[in-house]
Amino acid sequence: MTIRDVLFGKPLPTWDERAEQLGVGPGIPIFGLDALSSAAYGPEAALTLLIPLGAAGIAYIVPISASVIALLVIVYFSYRQTIAAYPGGGGSYTVASENLGPFAGLLAAAALMIDYVLTAAVGISAGVGALVSAFPRLLPHTLGLCLLILLFITIINLRGLRQAGIVFMVPTYLFIFSLLAAVGIGVFKSITSGGHPAAVIPPPAALPAAAGIGVWLLLQSFASGCTAMTGVEAVSNGVMAFKEPATKTAQRTLTIIIALLILMLGGIAFLVRAYHIAATDPGAVGYQSVISMIIAAVVGRGPLYYTAIGSVLVVLALSANTAFADFPRLCRAIALNGYLPDAFSLRGRRLVYSQGVWVLAGLAALLLIVFQGVTNRLIPLYAVGAFLAFTLSQAGMVAHWLRVKGPGYRRYIVVNGIGAVATGATVLVVLVAKFIEGAWITALLIPTLLISMMAVKRYFDRVAEELQCTEPFNVEGLHSPLIILPVQKWSRLTRKAVEVAYALSRDVEAVHVCAEGEKNDVREEWEKYVLTPLRKAGLTEPKLTMLDSPFRLVITPIVNHVLAVQQENPTRRIAVLIPEMIEHHWWHYFLENNRAELLKALLLLKGNQRILIVNVPWYLKN
Amino acid sequence: MTIRDVLFGKPLPTWDERAEQLGVGPGIPIFGLDALSSAAYGPEAALTLLIPLGAAGIAYIVPISASVIALLVIVYFSYRQTIAAYPGGGGSYTVASENLGPFAGLLAAAALMIDYVLTAAVGISAGVGALVSAFPRLLPHTLGLCLLILLFITIINLRGLRQAGIVFMVPTYLFIFSLLAAVGIGVFKSITSGGHPAAVIPPPAALPAAAGIGVWLLLQSFASGCTAMTGVEAVSNGVMAFKEPATKTAQRTLTIIIALLILMLGGIAFLVRAYHIAATDPGAVGYQSVISMIIAAVVGRGPLYYTAIGSVLVVLALSANTAFADFPRLCRAIALNGYLPDAFSLRGRRLVYSQGVWVLAGLAALLLIVFQGVTNRLIPLYAVGAFLAFTLSQAGMVAHWLRVKGPGYRRYIVVNGIGAVATGATVLVVLVAKFIEGAWITALLIPTLLISMMAVKRYFDRVAEELQCTEPFNVEGLHSPLIILPVQKWSRLTRKAVEVAYALSRDVEAVHVCAEGEKNDVREEWEKYVLTPLRKAGLTEPKLTMLDSPFRLVITPIVNHVLAVQQENPTRRIAVLIPEMIEHHWWHYFLENNRAELLKALLLLKGNQRILIVNVPWYLKN
Repeated sequence: MTIRDVLFGKPLPTWDERAEQLGVGPGIPIFGLDALSSAAYGPEAALTLLIPLGAAGIAYIVPISASVIALLVIVYFSYRQTIAAYPGGGGSYTVASENLGPFAGLLAAAALMIDYVLTAAVGISAGVGALVSAFPRLLPHTLGLCLLILLFITIINLRGLRQAGIVFMVPTYLFIFSLLAAVGIGVFKSITSGGHPAAVIPPPAALPAAAGIGVWLLLQSFASGCTAMTGVEAVSNGVMAFKEPATKTAQRTLTIIIALLILMLGGIAFLVRAYHIAATDPGAVGYQSVISMIIAAVVGRGPLYYTAIGSVLVVLALSANTAFADFPRLCRAIALNGYLPDAFSLRGRRLVYSQGVWVLAGLAALLLIVFQGVTNRLIPLYAVGAFLAFTLSQAGMVAHWLRVKGPGYRRYIVVNGIGAVATGATVLVVLVAKFIEGAWITALLIPTLLISMMAVKRYFDRVAEELQCTEPFNVEGLHSPLIILPVQKWSRLTRKAVEVAYALSRDVEAVHVCAEGEKNDVREEWEKYVLTPLRKAGLTEPKLTMLDSPFRLVITPIVNHVLAVQQENPTRRIAVLIPEMIEHHWWHYFLENNRAELLKALLLLKGNQRILIVNVPWYLKN
Repeated sequence: MTIRDVLFGKPLPTWDERAEQLGVGPGIPIFGLDALSSAAYGPEAALTLLIPLGAAGIAYIVPISASVIALLVIVYFSYRQTIAAYPGGGGSYTVASENLGPFAGLLAAAALMIDYVLTAAVGISAGVGALVSAFPRLLPHTLGLCLLILLFITIINLRGLRQAGIVFMVPTYLFIFSLLAAVGIGVFKSITSGGHPAAVIPPPAALPAAAGIGVWLLLQSFASGCTAMTGVEAVSNGVMAFKEPATKTAQRTLTIIIALLILMLGGIAFLVRAYHIAATDPGAVGYQSVISMIIAAVVGRGPLYYTAIGSVLVVLALSANTAFADFPRLCRAIALNGYLPDAFSLRGRRLVYSQGVWVLAGLAALLLIVFQGVTNRLIPLYAVGAFLAFTLSQAGMVAHWLRVKGPGYRRYIVVNGIGAVATGATVLVVLVAKFIEGAWITALLIPTLLISMMAVKRYFDRVAEELQCTEPFNVEGLHSPLIILPVQKWSRLTRKAVEVAYALSRDVEAVHVCAEGEKNDVREEWEKYVLTPLRKAGLTEPKLTMLDSPFRLVITPIVNHVLAVQQENPTRRIAVLIPEMIEHHWWHYFLENNRAELLKALLLLKGNQRILIVNVPWYLKN
């Protein structure tokens, strides 16, 4: 039981894999957390933009939420079809690359990667935002809390999906039930009070209006509200993680997730209007999240409030988990196509694509640090990536049906076509409305990622081409190499190295770099310990070459000599023997010159195809 | 011309060495800067402790300075004899180890090393102290200025001694002449005014007395004042750096240095009393150095004041150079005896023992940072090391004369004996008087260093013993090794590796780690590309071993297999061939798995005497 075992779980063998398959019950938290928890920041993001309108702005949340819900329904039907068509996992990347070509696929991949990173960052920052609403004293520690939660999620995900499901199920369901309960009570109170419920704890009064309503402001508010939809593609991306029949299970999961999300968004919009709740200035003193104000208004700050806010906090923070479930899978798919390094396609000790988990954690941490963990500053970067991926996925499905045809395909084309147009229009709206506030960062990152991935592919293709070989090996070329052996003075290590040299070849040259002020007895020792026994045995004598070193360097003269010998022998391989002492304690490393390490590194760097390096280690007993 | 050439100078060949020898003129700044510049902080350190006595305390500077000067004279005569007896360099380390045994020598070495580090730190911090006296606005930047000056000195010293002499000569002589001029004018004015000179700029009035005079306070003040003597051993340590006749030149240099130092210390004490100058609180607002107050009182803040203070600043800061000249030499001497790693005895590109320069710079920076560059906080750590080294050196000389005898040796014993007793008593005084303020740090560091150096020696002795070899090499044991070659799929690199394997031995085993989900065509390829041509040529067929990897690890199964094969073949060497792609651009490193590097590292770590590692590099063209 090592520390790694405790933190990350014992390593799982590959055959343990089937056990990681999910039913609807655990599927909702794993793949729905992101989508569902968006309800906690999406409406608030829209409302924040309406602050300048004062009390008059509150009513606009209803049409804006209605538009978002309409878009959500379109996207839902579109993705149901995707799940059916791609039981092996129909993420935007797969669908776009298979149907629109590799370039569109990569574009979708880049958009999704950025989307996942933002999902992780926004989920965590919004969760911490809920926490500091309830406990304003924690406000100065926002960033630290964000990073702490990120660390926790990373560790859970490195342990693997199955436990992750169990850990996340309880808070997710608590969140769903408590939020829907508050919505239900609020709607009931509104109706029984004839549409004018009395708030248990009245929300802060809206500021006086500082601006008049305009199309631009509504567009911006809608663009922010669209973040409530992020995450709905997760199910289609991970169909293969569901229990058989995977397609049905996945579709059922998606339906439940979308239905719950619509209930929440609709309910929140209704209550915001009924209770006259205006957003407060994020990041400033006195900030309180919209969800916190709604629940406080409906049921007061009793035990129910703290239960609800507690589950909101946990779920929001853990919604980042959707990204942790999907980002590594996406990277793996890209890596299998050669656009990302191989390491992303290898599963770690717990059957998780660990490399992807680490990279996602690192990028999310970077975002959180740069934006100081404030959700509102991250929102403008969001949505662009998500909706671009939606668009490419739906457009890809249209192309898919055109190609595959099959019964009733025209109806499918219409559904996916509407999805593509609607989400494509949304991309443009979001990009324009949020460009200056931060969408430009996403707009810059997506092509950068795209180009990098294409460069990676080019690199691997070149390497593969260069290493490509269809010739059998050449039995003719089996000459033993010329051996070059750097020697200092006679020692057991030198003796071992000379024996190894003669075991490998009969052409041995020893080189000695003359150090300053040296009492030069190497020749004597060489004569006595090497040449004499060799002559007796009638074997070829090895050369002993003395190298001068006016600048007191030891390694460079040896490397230069090796290169010179290699030039003089254009057809032979040169094997450089490097005697090396291996320390038993790391601190001994600092006591030695570590010339062997340097010599190896420099030889590899300056060497060429005909130069081999042979390590002759000597293990010190102490 | 590289950046290194510009910063550190072009590399010097070993034969350029004789040119680095010094006459008296450059010898005074190189070896006297530390001793002479001590005059600028020693008296002040003593006066600072007298602050609580108020105006009444000022007069005590005269007996305290007189005691320091008396001690200085004793030490001078003692060191003159040391120079004559040790023309090859009679540092405390050499003298103590040769005459009192290696333990005493190491104790002296440890004391000196700490002394040199403090010399560098105190010199720089006192220099910056002078600067902030003249320009109080710089006070908040004390530490930054200290580190900047340290960097400058480090670079100068890495360039080598000769240029260092030229750089330091001008400010040193400017310092000597301007300080002595101020002293001369002040003494003249005092005498002509009947002992009551009028100050041009009166010093700040002394604070009212807060304590009565006591023996303890005087002892503490004397202990601080002793820092004025640090550095006088430098000449004896570096005799071999002087021009022939080295002994005479060195003695003459020492005489001049001591004479100048006595003049300064005496003059400062006289003027402090005549002009009623009390120290100001160091580190606090309103601080002004004693030297600054004296010169301002004698000649006012005219051009002469700024010239003098300017040279004080430069010289104080550069006094650290004495440490930079001697610390690396000391480390070299210790390394040659095996108590420090070899690297300290090798000269860098400019004939300087660069390693020592780097270490000294690092430690001085550490001290400056910890103590925020305030001289007064460093003073209590000082003196203990210096006086312990003095004592061991003089005691060693007594033992030397007792052993060597020779004409007039009794007189020599008396001189060195008085020196040993006087400095030994001072060590005790300083240690007791300054223990709580910081001498405890030195008292802890000296034995720590001592024990570390003994451990280093033990380590090297053990290694040397283990590697010690007087047997010739064994012609019998020249069997070619068993070769183990990890293969992935057939490629040019694999082909090259198989060829290398057969060039080295006919016993070849290829191992393949089965990756998850692999389409297993390795056997086919092996048959087609390797076995077929080998059968045709009638050569031994190599084994192909398939290794399972349930935990998806690649490297560990190979290492385990190698160890198992090694166990099964108790008499043969095993050579593991490691094919490796060499990238041309460092960023490509991140794209590959770098498994070859990991495999090499793990094999070296877990391997043993019979396992060799053979690198088969493949240089990518792109």
